[in-house]
Amino acid sequence: MRRAFEEELSNLHSQFYQMGLMVSESIYLSVKGFTAHDKGIAEKIVENDPLINEQQVKIETKSIELIALQQPVTSNLRHIITIMKACADLERMGDHAVNIAKATIRVKGNKRNLDIENELAVMAEKVKKMVERALKAFIEMDVEEAKNIALTDDEIDQIAFELHKRTINEMKLDPEIVLGATNYILVAGNLERIGDYVTNLCEWIVYLETGKITELNTHNTLDNNIY
Amino acid sequence: MRRAFEEELSNLHSQFYQMGLMVSESIYLSVKGFTAHDKGIAEKIVENDPLINEQQVKIETKSIELIALQQPVTSNLRHIITIMKACADLERMGDHAVNIAKATIRVKGNKRNLDIENELAVMAEKVKKMVERALKAFIEMDVEEAKNIALTDDEIDQIAFELHKRTINEMKLDPEIVLGATNYILVAGNLERIGDYVTNLCEWIVYLETGKITELNTHNTLDNNIY
Repeated sequence: MRRAFEEELSNLHSQFYQMGLMVSESIYLSVKGFTAHDKGIAEKIVENDPLINEQQVKIETKSIELIALQQPVTSNLRHIITIMKACADLERMGDHAVNIAKATIRVKGNKRNLDIENELAVMAEKVKKMVERALKAFIEMDVEEAKNIALTDDEIDQIAFELHKRTINEMKLDPEIVLGATNYILVAGNLERIGDYVTNLCEWIVYLETGKITELNTHNTLDNNIY
Repeated sequence: MRRAFEEELSNLHSQFYQMGLMVSESIYLSVKGFTAHDKGIAEKIVENDPLINEQQVKIETKSIELIALQQPVTSNLRHIITIMKACADLERMGDHAVNIAKATIRVKGNKRNLDIENELAVMAEKVKKMVERALKAFIEMDVEEAKNIALTDDEIDQIAFELHKRTINEMKLDPEIVLGATNYILVAGNLERIGDYVTNLCEWIVYLETGKITELNTHNTLDNNIY
């Protein structure tokens, strides 16, 4: 019985990891599609999102089944609950990638600002690394790494803030860029939210190890986190 | 034992409802503060948000404790899991109210457009009603009502879409309105996301009754839901 449980848990883990990779890929491609103005990539992301959602439903259903049938206690129970919570966060990251893809689809030959687009690509690269590090830390239950990752979210918030300010200035100078530039703000905002969800993931890693729900990086300060 | 469990569950329910009212109030006040340019209200929302987060942690901790100690099965287990999931959605709605409050704090005597601000107030009123209806449906386990509420989210998406389009037009015509108007887009986007979370809540009500995780209103179409 115990052995069967551990096998089931390990299955759940690899399903979670697989979902994480799907989401990470989707985030990366969404920004690549946006900066390359490639609607084909963007449409693919929108089309693939239901697969991510299905994966979440599968993991949730399996988790609840495991709790009901095996009645795990303490750390095993915590483990399953954590996977459920974390996969909900992953699913939301996927939604933000879809938002970015939709922005790509909406763009219609607007005037562009390549500097800002390059900064967005750099930001996306950082967010993607954050997601991948968090997935690895989750699988390895690395609490120290989780705390470090959560701290890097401040950098993402700062980049979003700078991009926001800069984009607004460009819009004031050149009305022709308004339509394209509101998309820059939306894309940066979506990436910033993905960073917040990575912080959530990190909190779940800490919870898994310690049994304590903590906030590693609050988003309630007045000065950063603008969306 | 069974009686004790039912009492605990009922306690959990009222804690959830209380949290819901806190969030609903926060959403309503955030837009009131924004349209009235009242930074005092906005700061209060940011200050109060940690109380909402604490309430969530309390409900989650209690839920996990209940599962571990009482080892509920089938519908009782489902009930607790649902409350946990739903309170995570409530917490995120609270975060979106904070985002709106932050937009209010950032605004510095910018040029305004009262027409758009009025539309935002109307949108906020609709979202607030949606939240309250969903809370009531949750407490009363009203599946039919939950399905109806989820459908009204399309209207919210449509309003957000119209506001977005209109704001971009205003920005093109008048560069002085750019800074203020990007906030209109952000506020509408945050309200629209709150509508999505209400849809999630409704899905949890259906799950509670039927044991099936369903999507009542997908956000994966290409034409609506722009954020």
